Amino acid sequence: MPAIDQYLQSHASRFEDELWEFLRIPSVSADPAHREDMHRAAEWMADQLRRMGFTAETIPTAGHPLVYGESPKLPGARTFLVYGHYDVQPPEPLEKWTTPPFEPSRREGHVYARGAVDDKGQVFTHLKSVEAWITVEGRLPVNLKFLIEGEEEVGSRSLEQFLSEQAERLACDCVIISDGSQFAPGVPAINYGLRGIAYYELRVTGPNRDLHSGSYGGAVTNPANALAKILAGLIDEQGRITIPGFYDEVVPLTVRERQEMAALPFEEAKFLEELGVAGAVGEAGFTSLERRWARPTFDVSGLWGGYQGEGAKTVLPASAGAKFSFRLVPNQEPEKVTTGLKWRLAELCPAGVELDLIRLAELCPAGVELDLICHHGAPGVLVPLDSPYVEAAARAIAYAFGRRPVFTREGGSIPIVTTFRQRLGVDSLLLGWGQEDDNAHSPDEKFSLADFQRGIKASARLWEELSTLSLESGKPG
Amino acid sequence: MPAIDQYLQSHASRFEDELWEFLRIPSVSADPAHREDMHRAAEWMADQLRRMGFTAETIPTAGHPLVYGESPKLPGARTFLVYGHYDVQPPEPLEKWTTPPFEPSRREGHVYARGAVDDKGQVFTHLKSVEAWITVEGRLPVNLKFLIEGEEEVGSRSLEQFLSEQAERLACDCVIISDGSQFAPGVPAINYGLRGIAYYELRVTGPNRDLHSGSYGGAVTNPANALAKILAGLIDEQGRITIPGFYDEVVPLTVRERQEMAALPFEEAKFLEELGVAGAVGEAGFTSLERRWARPTFDVSGLWGGYQGEGAKTVLPASAGAKFSFRLVPNQEPEKVTTGLKWRLAELCPAGVELDLIRLAELCPAGVELDLICHHGAPGVLVPLDSPYVEAAARAIAYAFGRRPVFTREGGSIPIVTTFRQRLGVDSLLLGWGQEDDNAHSPDEKFSLADFQRGIKASARLWEELSTLSLESGKPG
Repeated sequence: MPAIDQYLQSHASRFEDELWEFLRIPSVSADPAHREDMHRAAEWMADQLRRMGFTAETIPTAGHPLVYGESPKLPGARTFLVYGHYDVQPPEPLEKWTTPPFEPSRREGHVYARGAVDDKGQVFTHLKSVEAWITVEGRLPVNLKFLIEGEEEVGSRSLEQFLSEQAERLACDCVIISDGSQFAPGVPAINYGLRGIAYYELRVTGPNRDLHSGSYGGAVTNPANALAKILAGLIDEQGRITIPGFYDEVVPLTVRERQEMAALPFEEAKFLEELGVAGAVGEAGFTSLERRWARPTFDVSGLWGGYQGEGAKTVLPASAGAKFSFRLVPNQEPEKVTTGLKWRLAELCPAGVELDLIRLAELCPAGVELDLICHHGAPGVLVPLDSPYVEAAARAIAYAFGRRPVFTREGGSIPIVTTFRQRLGVDSLLLGWGQEDDNAHSPDEKFSLADFQRGIKASARLWEELSTLSLESGKPG
Repeated sequence: MPAIDQYLQSHASRFEDELWEFLRIPSVSADPAHREDMHRAAEWMADQLRRMGFTAETIPTAGHPLVYGESPKLPGARTFLVYGHYDVQPPEPLEKWTTPPFEPSRREGHVYARGAVDDKGQVFTHLKSVEAWITVEGRLPVNLKFLIEGEEEVGSRSLEQFLSEQAERLACDCVIISDGSQFAPGVPAINYGLRGIAYYELRVTGPNRDLHSGSYGGAVTNPANALAKILAGLIDEQGRITIPGFYDEVVPLTVRERQEMAALPFEEAKFLEELGVAGAVGEAGFTSLERRWARPTFDVSGLWGGYQGEGAKTVLPASAGAKFSFRLVPNQEPEKVTTGLKWRLAELCPAGVELDLIRLAELCPAGVELDLICHHGAPGVLVPLDSPYVEAAARAIAYAFGRRPVFTREGGSIPIVTTFRQRLGVDSLLLGWGQEDDNAHSPDEKFSLADFQRGIKASARLWEELSTLSLESGKPG
């Protein structure tokens, strides 16, 4: 690696110049006025790939073009897919930027520009690491495919379509994504897990009209009362979800995972203070980080029913409703959660409310009526900590950043990771070079230039580390 | 009574003509355009009273005038206050009326006009019974005071003011009100009880902003989850309210009351079908009528929190809220309910939510935060079934309608009845001559002319019955 590292060091300044060039293209995917800029950004990327000997093209879609490129075929070597996006969030409100969003500005070791960290600056590190290998060694030690989309900030619709049609072409051993953050400044991280989700809407219907709560109250089931009872009944006093079988497939935290999480520089008091809440509360027996990252949850996201205006209205509402979701962890399946939820609803639903869409009439007393709408679902993902890919990435990061990464999970879902798992059957490595306070999606978005250079170095080392894994076991060969 | 009955019979036609005259005055209290009509209606009433020898006046208020009159003082006799209102609901939508609302029309034994039953036609029965007594006997057998307001349909604000200032002038043994309905056609009724109310708003506040349910869910108390748990915890599986001491002051239904209610021609299946609900549900051990009329309840009237729009939003809301009320029965006091509710909320509120307005911080674990707003409260009222006034009214009604009245209660509140109880310290007799389907507040409001005449006859007999009660015991002397 010394020659490659030497190359990176001597070309660091040019890499920044090129990044400036990339950041100057206002590739705002949400704004139709930037349609031509989107094409320009895609071509700019494809051109970068071609100059390194990749076969690369921009692929037209119903939305913005995809950029796709492949390195010259290296027989007998593993294949990795680098995913990223060249589109950026709208820069508004413009008046809140210290310098214009599409005129990159260097201040205190950072580059300030829209897209600096999300995701142009990060995806660009992988391009430059490839350039170093090609220039210094004449070839990469692995096969690489680059798939860079232009609709990440607006829903990735064209990418989903492409993945469903071109799975064979995209075949790989693992996906590499750099579109996130380190755990803290100076604390690089590998995110090895995401939660899934099962999102529902429940509508409770009672009498055929709003009733006077005086004249009718007490003799007619109140849908808002019933809704409260049902929602309350989905979680017990220990914070555990009461759906039968809900925890059956939950992959428990390993001892190593719990140790890694406990060792993280996470200040719970600061976390709570920043949110303005007085205490850490959740499922009994788990820490806050474990609850956020590795345990399933039940959260009501919306509630409505009856009178919401000023003052008092004595109404017994005809209906009430809620939106809620369960965050899932591997290996929970949204479909199984739906099945279990229906059984639990049948147990919870009070008499006098009617039940329809979920066809639970036969299970419910006295003709209860509930409508359950399943909005969307996705399973969680988890790359085992002892995966050779994780270990290879950890070594590469340690090499470039001067310390081993911490291992984190994320409570939310990243749909594209689930899609890669479903369409290509492979894991994703989430290697974020940014920081939480980089203002992604906000004014004054920034990216540390030191981390930019370290990211290139880590990426270059990663190809080396991955190339040494034996093809059979995934262990270093 | 034969002479009086004879008089009523021979003047029945003129009574209707006079009612027509009264109904032609468009005394719509809600509409400022009818301000002059309000004065005209008040003067018309006062004039009726004066012609019978009453001292009567219209009393200016901040709103519409009150009509107040007193019969010539009859020493040693009891005093009763007749309450009613001369204002009417707005007639809109006009196109839904078969004949114009202020041009009374006779069809199939009914008079159709705005105010026919609510309340001009009913209050007028008491004027005509007085006329009969004065003309035939030269005097009434009791002392009567008439208090007829012009703001019943818009909140009775001026009357409340007048009652708080002129309680002494209004002193009486009992209030007579005819502003409601019989139980069914041919089934006259005396309403001897009303429920009270204690109406609250509860706001649950959690984190200082809406959070991403993926990144934070599980580690932060969700205010919407907490609200559901609290509301569900206020009522148990038997439909009983879980506030400590809540039932301590509840006057139980007597054996006679339960028998009277059970004997009523109430068709539960029809009641449920009309509401579109599949089953009768409520507090265990009580019938539907008992639940509606004589048992306290808990009903959520409004619910809100988080995202209520289309589709799915994965938010952990910063706050959630509800409006709810307890219907009260004698002798529950709203203030005691509030005290008990606060204790119960302290038990129910989950950790991680903050509690403020009700200052329950010391009772709650981990700094829970709830805001409780007390909107309004009123105790229930109950005239004992063995009250001599009830019995006198029952005899009068039996005499005029040809059958004894049934005894009913009402699940709602009539604030003026509570006010009479509080300001004058007396009970009210609720004697309604109308029917449930008389379209009060709707187009084609009507009133049976047979019931109009029977109401006059019952009223005339009532003065006789009330005059025979001994002054001490209230029993017939």
